[in-house]
Formats: sequence, C-alpha cells, structure tokens
Amino acid sequence: MESISVKHMYLAVVGAGNASPDVYDMAVSVGREAALRGWIVVTGGLKGVMEAAAKGAREVGGLTLGILPGGDRGDANPYIEIAVVTHMRHARNSIIAHTADAIVAVDGEYGTLSEIALGLKLKKPVVGIKTPWDIPGLVRVREPVEAIETVSRMLRGM
Amino acid sequence: MESISVKHMYLAVVGAGNASPDVYDMAVSVGREAALRGWIVVTGGLKGVMEAAAKGAREVGGLTLGILPGGDRGDANPYIEIAVVTHMRHARNSIIAHTADAIVAVDGEYGTLSEIALGLKLKKPVVGIKTPWDIPGLVRVREPVEAIETVSRMLRGM
Amino acid sequence: MESISVKHMYLAVVGAGNASPDVYDMAVSVGREAALRGWIVVTGGLKGVMEAAAKGAREVGGLTLGILPGGDRGDANPYIEIAVVTHMRHARNSIIAHTADAIVAVDGEYGTLSEIALGLKLKKPVVGIKTPWDIPGLVRVREPVEAIETVSRMLRGM
Amino acid sequence: MESISVKHMYLAVVGAGNASPDVYDMAVSVGREAALRGWIVVTGGLKGVMEAAAKGAREVGGLTLGILPGGDRGDANPYIEIAVVTHMRHARNSIIAHTADAIVAVDGEYGTLSEIALGLKLKKPVVGIKTPWDIPGLVRVREPVEAIETVSRMLRGM
Repeated sequence: MESISVKHMYLAVVGAGNASPDVYDMAVSVGREAALRGWIVVTGGLKGVMEAAAKGAREVGGLTLGILPGGDRGDANPYIEIAVVTHMRHARNSIIAHTADAIVAVDGEYGTLSEIALGLKLKKPVVGIKTPWDIPGLVRVREPVEAIETVSRMLRGM
Repeated sequence: MESISVKHMYLAVVGAGNASPDVYDMAVSVGREAALRGWIVVTGGLKGVMEAAAKGAREVGGLTLGILPGGDRGDANPYIEIAVVTHMRHARNSIIAHTADAIVAVDGEYGTLSEIALGLKLKKPVVGIKTPWDIPGLVRVREPVEAIETVSRMLRGM
Repeated sequence: MESISVKHMYLAVVGAGNASPDVYDMAVSVGREAALRGWIVVTGGLKGVMEAAAKGAREVGGLTLGILPGGDRGDANPYIEIAVVTHMRHARNSIIAHTADAIVAVDGEYGTLSEIALGLKLKKPVVGIKTPWDIPGLVRVREPVEAIETVSRMLRGM
Repeated sequence: MESISVKHMYLAVVGAGNASPDVYDMAVSVGREAALRGWIVVTGGLKGVMEAAAKGAREVGGLTLGILPGGDRGDANPYIEIAVVTHMRHARNSIIAHTADAIVAVDGEYGTLSEIALGLKLKKPVVGIKTPWDIPGLVRVREPVEAIETVSRMLRGM
C-alpha cells in the first residue's frame, strides 16, 4: 500500500532558470529530500532551480522528470532522466501543475508565479521557500526539510 | 497608420468566472473603454469578468475574442464574437498572454494570477483593478478609465 | 435564426505553407466561397494555402481568424483579421480542429494530414481538394465550389 | 557511448484505445522488443494499443512513459511507470511526436493518424504495422520484430 502511494507521488520543484548559489543549494536539498521519500521529482527541465532539484534527486538515486518548453531534448539539464518535449513554451507550466501532486517553489520569478497560481487553482499543496510574493494559499517556509515535511503533512490531510 | 495600429491592439481582460455586481460593472467599463479606442477585447470567453468585459465592448460595437478552455463553443458567453475552442484548460491562459498586447485584471483568483504572471513574464503591460495581490510589475489602479489610460501610456512607452 | 447560425459557422481551410499558383488559386476560391456564405474562415495564419484562403475571404469582406504556431503576431499573413498567438507549434493544429465546424484541405503535406485526422476524430465534415492521401472519411472533391457545397450538405445532415 | 544513446532513445507506440486480441498481442511485442533494446516506451497512456505496448515493456523491466490527454492520472493504464497529465486532449499527440525519436503505429484510427502525420512532419522514422492507410513516408511492415529492426536501421541512417 505504502509503496503504491510512494510510486504515485510526484513533486514539482519550480523556480527560475537562473539561481544564486544559495538558492541552488536549497533546490538541491529539496530534490534530495523528495527523492529520499521515494517521490518523483518533476521540473521544467532547464537550468537553475530546475537543474538543482534534479541534481539533488539523482544524487540519492531518485527519478527525475523534465517537462521542457522547447522542441529539443538537448535543452534538458544532465540530471533529467525522463524528458518530455512539449514545444509549447509557457503552456507547459500547466502540464507541470497537472502532473504534480504538490509543488515546492524556491525563490522564483514570473514563470514560477504562474506555476504557483495554477497549483493553487488545482487545489494542490504549494509551498514556497524564499518566494518573493505573499499569495494567500501559498505556504511559505524557511528551508528545504521544512518544505518537504509541510508538503507531506498537507498531502496526508487531503 | 493610426487605423493599422488600432487594428493590431489586443487587450486581454482577465478575472474570475464569478463576479460580484461591483466587479462585473468595472469589467464592463474596461471592455467599453478598450473598444472605444478600437482595441480588440480578448478574454477567456466564460462568465463573470470575462462576460462583463465582452459585454462592455459589444455595447459600443467592439470586437470580442474568447479563448475557451473547454471543447465546446457553446461555453462562450453571448458577447463573444469570435470563439477559439482550445480544449486545453489552463494552458489556454498562456495563449491569452501571448495573444494580448497588454492585460487588465479585474479582481481575480488563481487563474487570473497565472495570466498576470505570464503577461509579466512576456514583458507586457499588466494593470490590475482590485487585484488582491501585491506583485512587483503589476500596476495597480483604482478604476477602469485609469486602467485603460495606464495601458495606453505603457504601450506608447514601449 | 439564419444570421445566428451563419455567425457561428467556422470553416477551417488547411494546407501547406507553400503553394503552387494552381493550389493558391483554389484556396483563394475556397476562402471566397466560404465568406460569401457568411462563414468565418479559420486557418493556421501563415503563407501558402493559409494566406490564399484568408485573401479570398477578405476580398469579399469575410472575417478571417489565424491561429498561429509561433510566438509572434507578425508571422500572420496580411489577410488575417484576428490573430491568435499560441506559441505551441503543431499543438495549434488541435485548436484549429476544435474551433472549426468543418475543414476543407487543399493539397497539403503532413501538418495538413494531422489536421484532417483530428477533424475526422472529432467527427467533423472534412473535405479535400487535391489532397494526396486516400483516407476513409475524407471526402475528396475536384474544385472549390464543390468543396463548399459538400461541406454545406454534410453540416445540414448533422 | 552505447549506454548514453540507449538511455536517450524514446520510442512512441501509437494506436487506438480499443484493440482486438490480435492487435493487442502485436503491441505487446513491440513494447517488449523496444524495452529489450533499452528504449523508453512512450504512449498516450490509455487502454488498447497504449496499454499493450506498456505491458510488453514492463514485462521485461522496461521504462514506460504515458502522456495522458485528460486531467486525471488515474486514467493511466497499470503499466505506465511515469504519467504526465496534460489535460490537453489531442494536443498531447503533438507532445508525443516531439518527445519520441521514432514512432511505431499498430493498426490505429484517426488519433493515430494525427500522430503518424506529426512524426513525419518532424522527420522522424515512422513505421506502421497493420496501419490502414497508405501514407508516403510511413514505412509499413508485417510484424513487431520487423518494426523495431526497421526503426533501428532508420535511426542509424540519420
């Protein structure tokens, strides 16, 4: 039973394609903590926070899914195990929100905000670390382990 | 020259599918003011703010374009002149943001927020009336005429 | 009653972005005949057959809707009145098929074939002029007036 | 080198959501043969040919990716390891064509035809078993092993 639900848990980690070292490290930790729980880590497949989260997950043997905006699989960062090539630009943000059971945003810019908004629209747990906006429904936390534990708690409460 | 640029100006009016009478009236005014300037009014095609903006535009002979999330043209409100049937749910928000030259949000919920975010991502003028979030880049104003004049000014400045 | 149904009839004219003079002329005629019946002419918005059909419609005062694959409205041919910017590449073919009440293909290549297939999938009348494939369900005719009359007959039969 | 290219090879197996026992068995074999070569098997994630191909791949330990048209991960057949929830209906066919390096169609109806057409549009090898259409560019073969070998040969020739 446990293994089935673990198999089916997808965590989207969203954030900007550019990340400061600090933000990058945080996203690595989010990816690692998610993968240690057996969760599939879903990202937009590019650099920055997307790369960091996939790197963290891969380092502990996790499975990483990248949903790319462009038409070329080669855009995927090297930590993406499974790459989906949408060639749909920002419309792929909607696919990320639909595919995920929960979302953790790390820092982020406008693309990230659109994913947060769609996650909340779809009534999924959305947790932010260092997210620069105050959005009702977005649960803001301080650091990666707290983010993952908050997601876990919110999913159990569903 | 004027008529060409007028022909090519598309204003997206975004907001929730449910609107209080107050919000509805504001959206009617936004649509009307836009249409009086010869702008095409683009919306998500459904009820609430989307309907109100299209109603306001139609009442003064404006052209209204509805980009529907579902698979049935019959979902369009009666003020939509041209209906595009995407059958893509929230991914249609990205089409609205790409199609528009500028966005005016009236009140709004999470779907609206995703459209604001995508508009800002695409570096388009985004103006909000009664929008419940404080997002850097979103220019918040008090009422419809101010919204339209702000959009005009921002477009001229581009 | 008549005017309402006319208002709501959308004909997609699909075909390649390159057209021989012969094929171009046929697509002009399809667009013109459709517009003379008050139908909105929907295309992919680019050159070739898409341009020709919009040109034919515009020459008799028809309304033309272009659903563009790229992210730039400037890609639209000059006969497009209303341009929808999807930035979704071939996924926009699905939007064309959903938006149209019927499809006329003129000649065509693989993109056209995908639109024919989706139109048939959605159980819409699909008529081809000079289409190079023999697909069950695709009604092949010789020339533009026959195409439009066939579409009319099939729509009435629905 | 070999392992890298194997890791990156995605084969889409496309076909109808209903399959006769004969067609089902063929699709199982296509999935199995692909997985035995280390290829990721991509499908639309539903029943019929999509289920059969994923089943065949899973039975030999292959990795299966399902790109779902609806909004519910529960629509995926039980042999899908990674499910992408697009909520985009037939527009997801374009994602399948972009994600795949090559396509094998088994039998098929109109949705399948749209995927064949998009694969050919994108200049990818497209091989059909029992496909009911004669499309230039579609390489028709008799049985699963021949299909996989034909794809291999075409990919090497690229």
